[in-house]
Amino acid sequence: MSQPDLVLYHSWISSASRKVRFCLAEKGLAYKAVKVSLSNFEHHSDWYKKLNPSGVVPALLVDGEPIVESNFINEYLDDRFPSPLLRPTDAHALYDMRLWSKYIDDVCLPAIQKHNWMTNYHPMAREWTDAELEERLAAIPTENRRHVWYRMARDPYTADELETALDILTDMRDRIEARTAAAGWITGSAFSLADINAAPYAKRLEELDPTAFDPDRFPNAGKWWRAVSTRPGFVAAKIENFVEQGQPDYDPDI
Amino acid sequence: MSQPDLVLYHSWISSASRKVRFCLAEKGLAYKAVKVSLSNFEHHSDWYKKLNPSGVVPALLVDGEPIVESNFINEYLDDRFPSPLLRPTDAHALYDMRLWSKYIDDVCLPAIQKHNWMTNYHPMAREWTDAELEERLAAIPTENRRHVWYRMARDPYTADELETALDILTDMRDRIEARTAAAGWITGSAFSLADINAAPYAKRLEELDPTAFDPDRFPNAGKWWRAVSTRPGFVAAKIENFVEQGQPDYDPDI
Repeated sequence: MSQPDLVLYHSWISSASRKVRFCLAEKGLAYKAVKVSLSNFEHHSDWYKKLNPSGVVPALLVDGEPIVESNFINEYLDDRFPSPLLRPTDAHALYDMRLWSKYIDDVCLPAIQKHNWMTNYHPMAREWTDAELEERLAAIPTENRRHVWYRMARDPYTADELETALDILTDMRDRIEARTAAAGWITGSAFSLADINAAPYAKRLEELDPTAFDPDRFPNAGKWWRAVSTRPGFVAAKIENFVEQGQPDYDPDI
Repeated sequence: MSQPDLVLYHSWISSASRKVRFCLAEKGLAYKAVKVSLSNFEHHSDWYKKLNPSGVVPALLVDGEPIVESNFINEYLDDRFPSPLLRPTDAHALYDMRLWSKYIDDVCLPAIQKHNWMTNYHPMAREWTDAELEERLAAIPTENRRHVWYRMARDPYTADELETALDILTDMRDRIEARTAAAGWITGSAFSLADINAAPYAKRLEELDPTAFDPDRFPNAGKWWRAVSTRPGFVAAKIENFVEQGQPDYDPDI
């Protein structure tokens, strides 16, 4: 089977986009990357919502057919391109990988978002007039995202909320420290989508707290992070500093 | 391999429990069913939260090891006991099954919950004193569920909210009507977890609106529902009327 045509609509700084770039790179799959400008609200545009009705990045086009939800995109890639296999074969470890990836999405994503959006969007959104805000919100397809954009414009996250969010990411590190004690990886006995799906969060946590993966204090998590972040696939996926990659003109070839 | 010891902690009326009972029955797996009394808040008790830290049903013990999250329990069962296979083998259909099951959890569950909880819990919760309410909320491990219980006690769902919730379930029926046009099933060309995970929602929708699967108006969905609801596995799973199964003394053998 020849490789299908793959086009990734993504943002450099989006954690979900980073997960998929990492998986594609580990699989050695060639793809065309199309940057979706979040600052220009391209993800809320009608053309993009035809690819992803939730109006969030990424979306992967496979021979023109859109695939969405980063955890499911990565499992799809592993189903369709099983070499190298990025999932455990044991049923319980596979279950654990899915539960861990859901935890990353449901718990860690809202936490990281608070820090990322305050840095990137609050300074812009707070300047909007009521009419501009209303227009922006009307284009957003989900209640949850409308609420977050409203907060960026009119009710920014408090210092307490940001601290709680950082605690959640620190707790993720503690879970990684415990999970990697046995075999060095988050689940099962090998590198898998569980590690890939956590990696963008580990990167951003380290940016917010440079001691987060200090190998003297967190020997297992520190070793894990060194192993993950030096993989050729991680480097090829360009999971780099948020602040630099969030610049409007940042758009290297991949 | 001999069958492991399976114990399902469940509630008769919980949609997530019903999904897992249906899957276990389709697999022909023997299991012990333990009723968790939601009216007595057994799911918020310390012993139960050791099995499922989110304090929700179900939890499946496999040789004493708890497995949680109904969509993942069902995929685990299919991984561990692959005969009969309840998932498509095509990568895209498998992706579509996961996306559909997430839609059921993220969109349809909060909708069905509004109707179920107003029927079952609001008449009880509205009588609580502030001290009782505070004690109940303190035992609930997730913010989301604390909020829903607060609403049951002090700020019940409005007629508008209940109508919107019913519209969401009706929209699910419309999606089933469209999806079953090609091959009779929600995804792929055979009965799968996509159908199992939707079945408890179809049952409850039909209870709220007896015309919802009228075969004259919705020929594909009507045929699908007849095929699903007459399967021996559906019958064995005892996915029956919510009102009757919600009675405190309802606890037949399974």
